[in-house]
Amino acid sequence: MSGTVYLVGAGPGAADLLTVRAARLLGEAEVVFHDALIAEEVLRLASKAEKIAVGKRCGRHATAQRFINKRLADAARAHCVVVRLKGGDPMLFARAHEEITYLQARGIPVVVVPGVTAALAASADLRISLTRRGAARTVAFVTPRVAAGERESGWIASALAADTAAVYMGAGEAPAIAAALMAAGKPANTPVALVADASLPGVRVQYATLQELPGLSTSGAPTLILLGEVYREALPEAAAIVGRRTG
Amino acid sequence: MSGTVYLVGAGPGAADLLTVRAARLLGEAEVVFHDALIAEEVLRLASKAEKIAVGKRCGRHATAQRFINKRLADAARAHCVVVRLKGGDPMLFARAHEEITYLQARGIPVVVVPGVTAALAASADLRISLTRRGAARTVAFVTPRVAAGERESGWIASALAADTAAVYMGAGEAPAIAAALMAAGKPANTPVALVADASLPGVRVQYATLQELPGLSTSGAPTLILLGEVYREALPEAAAIVGRRTG
Repeated sequence: MSGTVYLVGAGPGAADLLTVRAARLLGEAEVVFHDALIAEEVLRLASKAEKIAVGKRCGRHATAQRFINKRLADAARAHCVVVRLKGGDPMLFARAHEEITYLQARGIPVVVVPGVTAALAASADLRISLTRRGAARTVAFVTPRVAAGERESGWIASALAADTAAVYMGAGEAPAIAAALMAAGKPANTPVALVADASLPGVRVQYATLQELPGLSTSGAPTLILLGEVYREALPEAAAIVGRRTG
Repeated sequence: MSGTVYLVGAGPGAADLLTVRAARLLGEAEVVFHDALIAEEVLRLASKAEKIAVGKRCGRHATAQRFINKRLADAARAHCVVVRLKGGDPMLFARAHEEITYLQARGIPVVVVPGVTAALAASADLRISLTRRGAARTVAFVTPRVAAGERESGWIASALAADTAAVYMGAGEAPAIAAALMAAGKPANTPVALVADASLPGVRVQYATLQELPGLSTSGAPTLILLGEVYREALPEAAAIVGRRTG
């Protein structure tokens, strides 16, 4: 007999943007293994759980993942409710596959609880639809982040083919991203929204054109790059905001 | 002075996949305007609210939308907390733009509360990541549904360019979708997952190849078409399931 491992989406940041199910499971959990960037306010919901940070560093993925897999399995043998808490949604850019495969191979039940992903939370902050009628009917979620063993290309073509693109985990490489997209034919005046700390009280929004993207200020906070014609109307006001910040 | 209109994502179907914030707002709401397909269990959370169904029929969009806009504004002038409840997430395929623009032009505060979208809930049911490491790093959310005044093409190119594609509101046109994608060059043996009533106890999953998609059984239930190599491993088991159902 073993407990169940719940792969739970922690949502975009704000504790009340967890799902009701996720909040309940955190309250029941005996152990919670969580990503590095989960907010303290969210972790407090796991009032009776042992909380274990298992954030991974780039380039050390393989070793760390094997270690996490084993710890999840060990915990499920000792406890009924084990939560693996991942930022955003577990099925989007979250490396859930290795954990699911490892646990299922050992007969440990795995349940996935979906979450609100950052692009939807950022869109709520902006009050601009990813698929605004007449301007966009398709949206691509992409990341330029390359892990060991993955192929390099692909994200550019997807971002170009969609009306709106949400680039995850790319803020640190904004200049390279802008250059790559423009080299591939994306117009330099494509509107961009840069959203840091989506859903949190300190959310920061900057609008610009694609060619201006490298000049925007980024921080270490979780940041999403959104681009597409749906942000065109927001540009004038945004340009003023950026002007005040940098001028 | 006017109340606030909250555009709230109702999530994929299960009541406990609402966000904590959405559940709280429903409890506080004095009026709830909701889409036709919102589950009864979700609406019950709005215990003290007048509940008004504003589901739209295809082809009658423009008239119906103007009517909804006006009713939302009227309600905000009479009540503090007005909820406009939309299936899934309000910023993805939900026609929120017209309502936001109309209300803001009249000085009525609008707040958007994001939700869990169907593709993420379906992926949780399947326990298959949309962006599985090594197999997919991009995902496109598209719909072939064309409203008046929208351009016809675009969704096919987006679906082709992404490693994984989620086709919303397309189940009724599965044969045309399969034909269009294959004509555009998508391989006939691309794995497909058809998920009906994602997140609900009666969720139904069928796996097939793209060329087999027209032969799958669809119902009037909300159904998502997922396609991409990440579903390849699920095919053998699925083929057996489909065989039993149709044989």
